[in-house]
Amino acid sequence: MHRIIIIGGGFGGLCAAQSMKKLPVQIALIDRRNFHLFQPLLYQVATGWLSPANIASTLRAVLRYQKNVRVLLAEVTDIDAQQHKVIFAGGELGYDTLIVATGSSHHYFGHDEWAQFAPGLKTIEDATEMRRRIFCAFEAAERETDAAKIRAWLTFTIVGGGPTGVELAGALADIANKTLTHDFRSIDPAAARILLIEASDRILSAYPEELSSKAESFLNDLGISVQTHTTVTELRAGVVAVRRGDTPEIIPCQTVLWAAGVRASHLGTALATRGVATLDRSGRVIVQEDFSIADHPEIFVIGDLASYTPRGGKPLPGIAPVAQQAGRYVAQVIGSRLTGKSLRQFRYRDRGSMAIVGRATAIADLGSVHLAGFIAWLAWLFVHLVQLVEFENRVLVLVQWGWFYFRRSRAARLITGDRFKL
Amino acid sequence: MHRIIIIGGGFGGLCAAQSMKKLPVQIALIDRRNFHLFQPLLYQVATGWLSPANIASTLRAVLRYQKNVRVLLAEVTDIDAQQHKVIFAGGELGYDTLIVATGSSHHYFGHDEWAQFAPGLKTIEDATEMRRRIFCAFEAAERETDAAKIRAWLTFTIVGGGPTGVELAGALADIANKTLTHDFRSIDPAAARILLIEASDRILSAYPEELSSKAESFLNDLGISVQTHTTVTELRAGVVAVRRGDTPEIIPCQTVLWAAGVRASHLGTALATRGVATLDRSGRVIVQEDFSIADHPEIFVIGDLASYTPRGGKPLPGIAPVAQQAGRYVAQVIGSRLTGKSLRQFRYRDRGSMAIVGRATAIADLGSVHLAGFIAWLAWLFVHLVQLVEFENRVLVLVQWGWFYFRRSRAARLITGDRFKL
Repeated sequence: MHRIIIIGGGFGGLCAAQSMKKLPVQIALIDRRNFHLFQPLLYQVATGWLSPANIASTLRAVLRYQKNVRVLLAEVTDIDAQQHKVIFAGGELGYDTLIVATGSSHHYFGHDEWAQFAPGLKTIEDATEMRRRIFCAFEAAERETDAAKIRAWLTFTIVGGGPTGVELAGALADIANKTLTHDFRSIDPAAARILLIEASDRILSAYPEELSSKAESFLNDLGISVQTHTTVTELRAGVVAVRRGDTPEIIPCQTVLWAAGVRASHLGTALATRGVATLDRSGRVIVQEDFSIADHPEIFVIGDLASYTPRGGKPLPGIAPVAQQAGRYVAQVIGSRLTGKSLRQFRYRDRGSMAIVGRATAIADLGSVHLAGFIAWLAWLFVHLVQLVEFENRVLVLVQWGWFYFRRSRAARLITGDRFKL
Repeated sequence: MHRIIIIGGGFGGLCAAQSMKKLPVQIALIDRRNFHLFQPLLYQVATGWLSPANIASTLRAVLRYQKNVRVLLAEVTDIDAQQHKVIFAGGELGYDTLIVATGSSHHYFGHDEWAQFAPGLKTIEDATEMRRRIFCAFEAAERETDAAKIRAWLTFTIVGGGPTGVELAGALADIANKTLTHDFRSIDPAAARILLIEASDRILSAYPEELSSKAESFLNDLGISVQTHTTVTELRAGVVAVRRGDTPEIIPCQTVLWAAGVRASHLGTALATRGVATLDRSGRVIVQEDFSIADHPEIFVIGDLASYTPRGGKPLPGIAPVAQQAGRYVAQVIGSRLTGKSLRQFRYRDRGSMAIVGRATAIADLGSVHLAGFIAWLAWLFVHLVQLVEFENRVLVLVQWGWFYFRRSRAARLITGDRFKL
């Protein structure tokens, strides 16, 4: 039986596995986590709205009835493309066809020491750590008596004006302005200062300019200070140093959230080191038209780790729909090789993109149609709700969204992990 | 204004605070966590059924509209009864009346080194750690090829046959027999061996004998091996050593869950060291008829930390209803002191107790009425559901219980924290 290994159970890898349901193959899906994570909603965990389990689906549960898939919980450390083997701690496994879909993580532009001051948002643990810092900041402010220190605790800097940064900023404003009203006795949570820092000339730069500027004005209405042309030059405990144009500024600030850089998974580097793959400037693996690597038709790379440029087009962005469509296509490529049937070329179908900007506001770029405001928010809700893998999670998320909408409640704002470590 | 400090936002402390809503006092509720935890359902978090946030309610949210309460997130380290001050890291606070309600934690009968091999179940972090170990054990068994090692990974030992131990055993049996069916390709989860170890002559010894033996036969029906008269003599990695009567036995077992000893909070010891309080054999503070300490009418101790023996009666057990009734009574004592009104004596109203034994089975001791089986389970569900503090949590828990009942699903079985650390 043809042996397929898929590394990574994210949008790309899971979709590839599910699309091969009827193929006479033997699939091993390897992931270091036991769940598929619905990353677009991770910021809602970080801001105490949803619980981790609401956006995570156990890979085994999702694939339990697909008998040609075996799930393996392991962290892959290397790929031996000559011997057709995948190496992980405590074992190795051979393949006939390999699909690498290990995605990306955040990075700090060469300043790894910033990680301790500014957590990123890629994993469940990142999200609960962000949640801990956000809600601890208000607690610390409530206990503090020095006005300048209170101000630093109530200042939140979000680095990066992409969708994640914008969503975090909007959620933070809602926490400060609505969720925490009546909760404190010494401080006024609504006095919190929220800064959204973006290096380029506008936030949400992947969207049309018109939507960017609408999003910025929505954020301004929420009291968020959007600072474009601004880069972080230093982070240390309690201080953010930025440069706005040519003007340096020091911001006393205890809570920094990182939503800026993205670095491709280390398996791309592992493949490049072995001379198997070529990387682009961002460390992503350059793939061919069918997502395989040059000279290695048996190795496919999909999702955020892949650098795919359609003929005569722009490189595809690192978003879930691209990964899912690539996963489905690679499954078809494998199927067509097994049956000898021919296959149409891959063509990315862009169904548009959306970002949340505040409580009941969003922007949506649906190609010819641009939406902004409440209607875009409804569209966002619908699209994200139906995409959750498990029906149980859909119901739970719907209940919590409803509660949130009508009561501004954020029931999942637990400070866990390091307890009260300020 | 009369200044009251309550240490601990558990059942006792929260109830005391809420019962003083209308008193002209100034209350500070100090807790090291930012939430009230509904501990009776903690085992459902440990077994992947509910999410932590479902059984935790932010103290600030619960008390937001009670303007005479101020919540302070801090870990109290000492109490200065002479100066009427509570000391915590980074500060101190004076009181006119103090209510200590810091509860208990698990302990290992002088074998603190066992903690690493056998997590207990008192905090959210304990529960997610237990969850990690339980689901990691099945993952490790799936990866293993050696039959003896697989057997050790599929052996689960629960130490302590009280309600928590019985509930954990029943939930584990359900995970092995139902939840994980179809999930694995190499192992049969239903082959898991579950041992429930109890030192005394029967499990659930606080219940009538008839219900104990019914519970034991329910557990046997689920395939659980109940071993009474059995004590743990040693725990080390992969091995549990027990003594059954006079017979020692070595059990190869990778997962041990601790549901045995309970130790009173360290603040009791702090009070005793200062000569303020007298402790009983379990380290609990001996209190008078009105829950105050002898010679210190301004200090009350309630909940699991208190050792209260009604006149001519047995000591009250360390359960939520006792703590809640004590909290309510102490609030009345304080109110009567302020107004000079007299107060009836405290009388514990025992409304009965219940324990879950498996999926849809429970036992209930309602005094004159003893229930066992499905009807007791329905009663258990109802009682626990209405006691959840927040309505949103009630809805979420109800949805998840329904799903669980009909589909045996356990959506919250994430392996988080130390990732895949076996």
